[in-house]
Amino acid sequence: MPYVCESRLRVRYAETDQMGMVYYANYLIWMEVGRSDYCRQCGLSYRDLEREEKAYLAVAEATCRYRAPARYDDEILVETEMTRLERRILEFSYRITHGATLLADGRTLHVVIGPDGKPKSIPRRYLELLKSKL
Amino acid sequence: MPYVCESRLRVRYAETDQMGMVYYANYLIWMEVGRSDYCRQCGLSYRDLEREEKAYLAVAEATCRYRAPARYDDEILVETEMTRLERRILEFSYRITHGATLLADGRTLHVVIGPDGKPKSIPRRYLELLKSKL
Amino acid sequence: MPYVCESRLRVRYAETDQMGMVYYANYLIWMEVGRSDYCRQCGLSYRDLEREEKAYLAVAEATCRYRAPARYDDEILVETEMTRLERRILEFSYRITHGATLLADGRTLHVVIGPDGKPKSIPRRYLELLKSKL
Amino acid sequence: MPYVCESRLRVRYAETDQMGMVYYANYLIWMEVGRSDYCRQCGLSYRDLEREEKAYLAVAEATCRYRAPARYDDEILVETEMTRLERRILEFSYRITHGATLLADGRTLHVVIGPDGKPKSIPRRYLELLKSKL
Repeated sequence: MPYVCESRLRVRYAETDQMGMVYYANYLIWMEVGRSDYCRQCGLSYRDLEREEKAYLAVAEATCRYRAPARYDDEILVETEMTRLERRILEFSYRITHGATLLADGRTLHVVIGPDGKPKSIPRRYLELLKSKL
Repeated sequence: MPYVCESRLRVRYAETDQMGMVYYANYLIWMEVGRSDYCRQCGLSYRDLEREEKAYLAVAEATCRYRAPARYDDEILVETEMTRLERRILEFSYRITHGATLLADGRTLHVVIGPDGKPKSIPRRYLELLKSKL
Repeated sequence: MPYVCESRLRVRYAETDQMGMVYYANYLIWMEVGRSDYCRQCGLSYRDLEREEKAYLAVAEATCRYRAPARYDDEILVETEMTRLERRILEFSYRITHGATLLADGRTLHVVIGPDGKPKSIPRRYLELLKSKL
Repeated sequence: MPYVCESRLRVRYAETDQMGMVYYANYLIWMEVGRSDYCRQCGLSYRDLEREEKAYLAVAEATCRYRAPARYDDEILVETEMTRLERRILEFSYRITHGATLLADGRTLHVVIGPDGKPKSIPRRYLELLKSKL
């Protein structure tokens, strides 16, 4: 069974638009909350990865399918899974729900880069931490 | 030749993140700017579509591939094309560039809904306006 | 002793800018999280106030003084107090801290309006709930 | 007569909230657009100030009074003026209008800091450029 990280958040008024639902770009922010928590649950601080290793997880691709609207004040669950892990490439998959309702699902693909924007390998210690949860 | 709508914008400081580039969710906002302009160029006010016809273009799917980073103060060109047009479904495709550099490309799929969230057909007059540019 | 509502949140990557700190407009979003929690702690759902009573708390004025930068992944505490309560006017004050460090403090002034944008009185039941905590 | 810089922008869907108007924090983003343009009109690139001089204009205080709502698709004019200029402190004032309607006015106070977050003086060349417009 793959590890699934659970993040809970409440919809902010700022995240709604005049359609009365959450604006579509905000789901990508929730995905970021999800993968940030995922890393933390692996004992990996994404902040330290940047600060100490000068390694950044740049987004190469993002996809989201919107199934049902999220609304202000809803309590949202973001379930994050790592679906690919290589030295230079990571992929996360997400399910975003409100109670029993699937609101959205999606995927982000990341490449590890250095401060110069060039690809690099994720430091071994961080790779091991991520592998330990798979 | 399909019609391509050109939108120009300048990267705001608010749109950057601590990686020193534009945060990935903001590209979806630029896509919205692109399709809003696209509709306007067709003689269709998306504002009126909502106000007068109670028809909304809900996003069903969004995809973006990130090719190169956009940075603060860059002048960005968003090229928007309509790649699918049915009575209840629309698809837009986008190319986002800075000078000769492709920064990102993507696609959004929309369903026409009413205030109750149920699918409905786009009013004929609006459909004709959109068709006229294809 | 006035009632102080405590809200906790973690800084999102999306909230940073290329200066490496939280972009200044985002503190106003945190204030909104604070006053939304404040209302909830009074037994008042701001969502219901809008939905059932068609009463909206429009912002008339906002002020924020920035004392120290918030950074990605920081755990933030927002302390919210109601500093003015009349039938048509409410004021909230906020202290935003990270550990022992004061990051920012500010104030928002609100007028109660109806769907037509005209001032109205907050329904008595809601007023009583807010008064009960003062 | 003090110099007033004019910036024009169109309200994005992303900037609205479920009240059907622009969310209040977004006015601070428009102020940033205004002062960025102001600097550019002085022949000063804020991007270069950061990159070449490692000098940053951190926000110390922001105030906004909201007079009338901005709505999706509105064409907005931001008028920016510099109302204080010292070696380490700058203040900008803003008027935000839609046609003849004043939507908001406000003020931001900035301190010049280095990469270490400590106050520093704005480089003389930049100071002269800013003074030339006053």
